[in-house]
Amino acid sequence: MNTIWNTAFSQGSEQLISSAIRELLKITEHPSTISFAGGLPAPECFPNIELTVAAERVLANQPMSALQYGPTEGYRPLRGFLAERMTGLGITTSLEQIIITSGSQQGLDLLGKLFIDPGAVVAVEEPTYLGALQAWRPYRPEFLTVPLDHEGIDVAVLEKMLRSGKRPRFVYVVSSFQNPAGVTLSPARRQALIEMAAQYDLPIIEDDPYGDIYYGGVRPKPLAALDCELSGELRHVVYLGSFSKILAPGLRVGWAALPRELVGKFVQAKQGMDLHTTSLSQIIVYEVCSDRLLERHIPAVRATYHARRDAMLEALEQHMPFGINWTRPNGGMFLWLTLPDFLDAANLLNAALDLQIAFVPGASFYANGGGNHTLRLNFSHPTTTRIYEGVSRLAQAIQTLRNKTVREA
Amino acid sequence: MNTIWNTAFSQGSEQLISSAIRELLKITEHPSTISFAGGLPAPECFPNIELTVAAERVLANQPMSALQYGPTEGYRPLRGFLAERMTGLGITTSLEQIIITSGSQQGLDLLGKLFIDPGAVVAVEEPTYLGALQAWRPYRPEFLTVPLDHEGIDVAVLEKMLRSGKRPRFVYVVSSFQNPAGVTLSPARRQALIEMAAQYDLPIIEDDPYGDIYYGGVRPKPLAALDCELSGELRHVVYLGSFSKILAPGLRVGWAALPRELVGKFVQAKQGMDLHTTSLSQIIVYEVCSDRLLERHIPAVRATYHARRDAMLEALEQHMPFGINWTRPNGGMFLWLTLPDFLDAANLLNAALDLQIAFVPGASFYANGGGNHTLRLNFSHPTTTRIYEGVSRLAQAIQTLRNKTVREA
Repeated sequence: MNTIWNTAFSQGSEQLISSAIRELLKITEHPSTISFAGGLPAPECFPNIELTVAAERVLANQPMSALQYGPTEGYRPLRGFLAERMTGLGITTSLEQIIITSGSQQGLDLLGKLFIDPGAVVAVEEPTYLGALQAWRPYRPEFLTVPLDHEGIDVAVLEKMLRSGKRPRFVYVVSSFQNPAGVTLSPARRQALIEMAAQYDLPIIEDDPYGDIYYGGVRPKPLAALDCELSGELRHVVYLGSFSKILAPGLRVGWAALPRELVGKFVQAKQGMDLHTTSLSQIIVYEVCSDRLLERHIPAVRATYHARRDAMLEALEQHMPFGINWTRPNGGMFLWLTLPDFLDAANLLNAALDLQIAFVPGASFYANGGGNHTLRLNFSHPTTTRIYEGVSRLAQAIQTLRNKTVREA
Repeated sequence: MNTIWNTAFSQGSEQLISSAIRELLKITEHPSTISFAGGLPAPECFPNIELTVAAERVLANQPMSALQYGPTEGYRPLRGFLAERMTGLGITTSLEQIIITSGSQQGLDLLGKLFIDPGAVVAVEEPTYLGALQAWRPYRPEFLTVPLDHEGIDVAVLEKMLRSGKRPRFVYVVSSFQNPAGVTLSPARRQALIEMAAQYDLPIIEDDPYGDIYYGGVRPKPLAALDCELSGELRHVVYLGSFSKILAPGLRVGWAALPRELVGKFVQAKQGMDLHTTSLSQIIVYEVCSDRLLERHIPAVRATYHARRDAMLEALEQHMPFGINWTRPNGGMFLWLTLPDFLDAANLLNAALDLQIAFVPGASFYANGGGNHTLRLNFSHPTTTRIYEGVSRLAQAIQTLRNKTVREA
């Protein structure tokens, strides 16, 4: 037995877990399986022709910038573009406050490195984004979970925690069309949360990969924008953005909009992590953005996902038995389904896989356990036809599990 | 004064330092400055036409693989290619043991996360690669420094440390054409180090970005290959490889060849860090590799750098005053210069910048201080003409500083 490396593991590495989702994706690759499990954008929506043209242009006109080592902060024109775009959303930032990351996942790991000591308290939504838990567990925080409802994180509960003396290093919020629950923090709660941040000097990490994928008429106003209004500049919020959902995830380009005091440390940490983000990807992204592709492309993504959400809601209404509840997201890629207490989502997954339908059991998204009767459904990747068929199979799996559970009771 | 974020910093983040090199690069960008400071490959050597053709082909033929989320482990055909290539070097590995990283810098950060607890002992060469120190300092190890000489790390000193009961989590070695010192671990010491690893169950991290850039007739045999010979499989060594020096660094593609017992944890850690490495870069790299570009391209890189090393050695012989010593690397991108004790390399840098010539003072590469009379010179990036001119200016700066020091004494 080989234990040369195992005996040398750090305490943090003992906390590492595989993403249930990424493991599940491996067994759901078969084409006849309908998967609501992944968090994949619709590949039909990738602007691959525009990206190809941009890639050719970049490699032909500026191969040296695309192929040589680049600045840790990111490709300067892309940072400038993003500073303008952020400022347009009310997040008043200069180019210097924008740092490019290798996907927003890297931003999460980096912030964990900067702010989490073993035992440090970190406040997260319950349920929260699994990738954040994966990024932070090796730093061994104590997670303080704040419940979510249909208006997003329950700020009254958070305030009670703060009043009782809890002082989290930061509170982590996926503010719009949350992954996994599909809910959006209401305007009133956004305002309350920012005021709380100001009152308690509470740092906020706002993760907003889905903000542009709204189905109503208006993009929700980021917490970071409210912070700029209240504080005169970005002060309490680190805003994480991503091109994964609005262009293509395989490029691995995200960004952070940072309070000025944080820029230096953020860049130092990024240097040690990967020197810099792929230059080729960054310049391709800049090229298509400066061609105003986002203005043309994002509405198409919105329309596609909107239709798929409608299909899933309609199918759920039609097929789900009484006693099953779900959220009605106004954007994004996910909805959240709650089973009756006597049905366990992990058992349901087994029954579902027998019918070649997959989802992610909700327990994965709970930092401190729980959520056994919940599950996450993705509607951005499957086509509407497969959504109807998949929901029908899922309802069938629920019936099967319910009959079995009743029989065994 | 804004201290919302500063007061929340982790203890590890207090250890973060900027790379002296990357900071220096910013002030040496002016075209009339001759820089021996960076660690940049020669841009004339980038195979940009082949990479452009491959990028077009990839985006035209398999846009979905290039743009969608990909597996954390990396693009499977690239892993297969690397497993074969590694096996060809004597590092007998299967595809499953090869994990793609976002540059080998990410491999270093990842291994720090897996193996370093605060206060854990980590053995490094003195001097060692600055990027490793940057990656690991936030995990707060105690660095055990093992001196280098012209045959590489002094294995007798390391063995004395092990005998005295020191048990480092791992020993980190840049085995060939070391950054910064330009020295190569001798075959006898390689064998001794691997036997020591077996005797003491000592994990080794072998960082080998320069191994392919040899000027002699034969590539040095990796420690990982000797491990396979001794142990029957890769057991004591994690081998880190990179395409940055043999193709182009802006793609950010590296890899780790891992002992089987380590693969699972390594992949879990990578998931939390950036989900996966840029798909587009990985597939482009695979395309040119499967076209056998490396076989045609690496000899050209070798020839270019060989000529530049010769130019630098010749210029040093010609211009350097008595009392200055330097290494004579048989490959790679760097050489190491030692000043007389009464001259400080940081002071020399100021005198050199006045003459528009830059280098990196050696102290940056010392984990526990020291090295004030040493400096690193890069010869891969400047042309031979600029190398002659730069060394002449450097000699002039040394004279100036020497005169000033003597005057002040």
